[in-house]
Amino acid sequence: MEQQDVLAKEIRQVADLMADAAWAAISPYFRQSDFGLANKAGEGAFDPVTDADKAAERAMRAVLADLRPEDGILGEEEGRKDGSSGLTWVLDPIDGTRAFIAGAPSWGTLIAVNRGEAPLFGMIDQGYLGERFSGGFGRAELVRNGFATPLSTHAARTLDQAILMTTFPEVGTQDERLAFERVRDATRLTRYGLDCYGYALVALGQVDLVIEAGLQSYDIQGPMAVVEAAGGVVTNWQGGPAHEGGQVIAAANAEIHAEALALLNG
Amino acid sequence: MEQQDVLAKEIRQVADLMADAAWAAISPYFRQSDFGLANKAGEGAFDPVTDADKAAERAMRAVLADLRPEDGILGEEEGRKDGSSGLTWVLDPIDGTRAFIAGAPSWGTLIAVNRGEAPLFGMIDQGYLGERFSGGFGRAELVRNGFATPLSTHAARTLDQAILMTTFPEVGTQDERLAFERVRDATRLTRYGLDCYGYALVALGQVDLVIEAGLQSYDIQGPMAVVEAAGGVVTNWQGGPAHEGGQVIAAANAEIHAEALALLNG
Repeated sequence: MEQQDVLAKEIRQVADLMADAAWAAISPYFRQSDFGLANKAGEGAFDPVTDADKAAERAMRAVLADLRPEDGILGEEEGRKDGSSGLTWVLDPIDGTRAFIAGAPSWGTLIAVNRGEAPLFGMIDQGYLGERFSGGFGRAELVRNGFATPLSTHAARTLDQAILMTTFPEVGTQDERLAFERVRDATRLTRYGLDCYGYALVALGQVDLVIEAGLQSYDIQGPMAVVEAAGGVVTNWQGGPAHEGGQVIAAANAEIHAEALALLNG
Repeated sequence: MEQQDVLAKEIRQVADLMADAAWAAISPYFRQSDFGLANKAGEGAFDPVTDADKAAERAMRAVLADLRPEDGILGEEEGRKDGSSGLTWVLDPIDGTRAFIAGAPSWGTLIAVNRGEAPLFGMIDQGYLGERFSGGFGRAELVRNGFATPLSTHAARTLDQAILMTTFPEVGTQDERLAFERVRDATRLTRYGLDCYGYALVALGQVDLVIEAGLQSYDIQGPMAVVEAAGGVVTNWQGGPAHEGGQVIAAANAEIHAEALALLNG
């Protein structure tokens, strides 16, 4: 095997073990009455974290300590650990903690690996649904019940036929909301509330656009790798790199990406 | 067995067969590229219906024609069929067709049976997730992977600890939206977009409130029976009967129902 193939195979295997470990840590808490809810934000705001988030990140870091000790790590809950291999794993143990505490299975465990910039590989794992979306090294797939299905984004269709998703109707700042609403008003259907699952639906060829703001790198690197490997386009709202987060647009194809970008900046 | 127990057993069995038949009809369409999408609304509006909606209602009606031919039927797609038994089945083959066409598994097949007014029994079936929520005749349960779990709504907690759901941020008319937002502003967390699945989360004890407007009887009778059997309270925004639809509030308990109702009418 080529060196790149060896790396791809090892990264896939390690990511599978990490996602398994994360769901094993999360499942005792999902839809239970006590999951150790705390508020990371100050008075008047609400940025929830639970014992499940913390346990899942610990479990993923333990897999890396065992199998890839020289890689760096950036995780939502425990921050940055430098590495020496040049590879960094970017982890969000529960993207969509608000959905998680409401019992809705639209949260996901996000895993990505990069060499300093855009992700080489990423994963969106939904343990309760048993759905694992992954993308990178020339392959995008959904594995469910032991079966792998290739992922492919929707072909170009006009905005007035398109489906748009975002998590919060507020989107971000007032300007960000207004920009989003210009796209919303041009599309056939807008749906809210699915967190990372919206990107999975783009990769599945069901949804044309996800537009969000205020993201962190660990919110987007996993989904970005999945969508791009499935044929989609993920950038910031200026058309530049999205791997650091901020304002992000994920599109099923270049045509609808260009149409939406024009409206965002109109 | 008492006569009521015989009826309860038969209704549960028939409803199970109907839900099985509906999912068998729907599954060939879910997440496919061509599901025969049409718009039931006029120009400028969007009220989607698909071949899956129609096939699922036909499949459920075929079960009733075979096993309960004397019962009446009210279905979203094919309307009313009078019966002679005094019982009427109320059917929504796909509640959340917008979610369905986006590939999101938050739509559900809704089944209820009534004797002219409030439902005696109801069901929310999510075939892709393999989750079947039912309630009535003194029992509320979720069946998944062959295991039944009793359903029980959340104990009373104050509104500032509560989780609220609705499907569309617009809710309904401008006045309805403002009323909803008074409750929203008093709760800890508001989530959008789950259609009938929000009621399932109330019955599961995860969500405290669902508030919606503009519902039809077939949108609410199935969810209403499930939530009530799990210990919740479902009324219209004036505290009266909800089984005809319109403005509906489903609450985990009487305390939070009263608090939310006061704000809706504030």
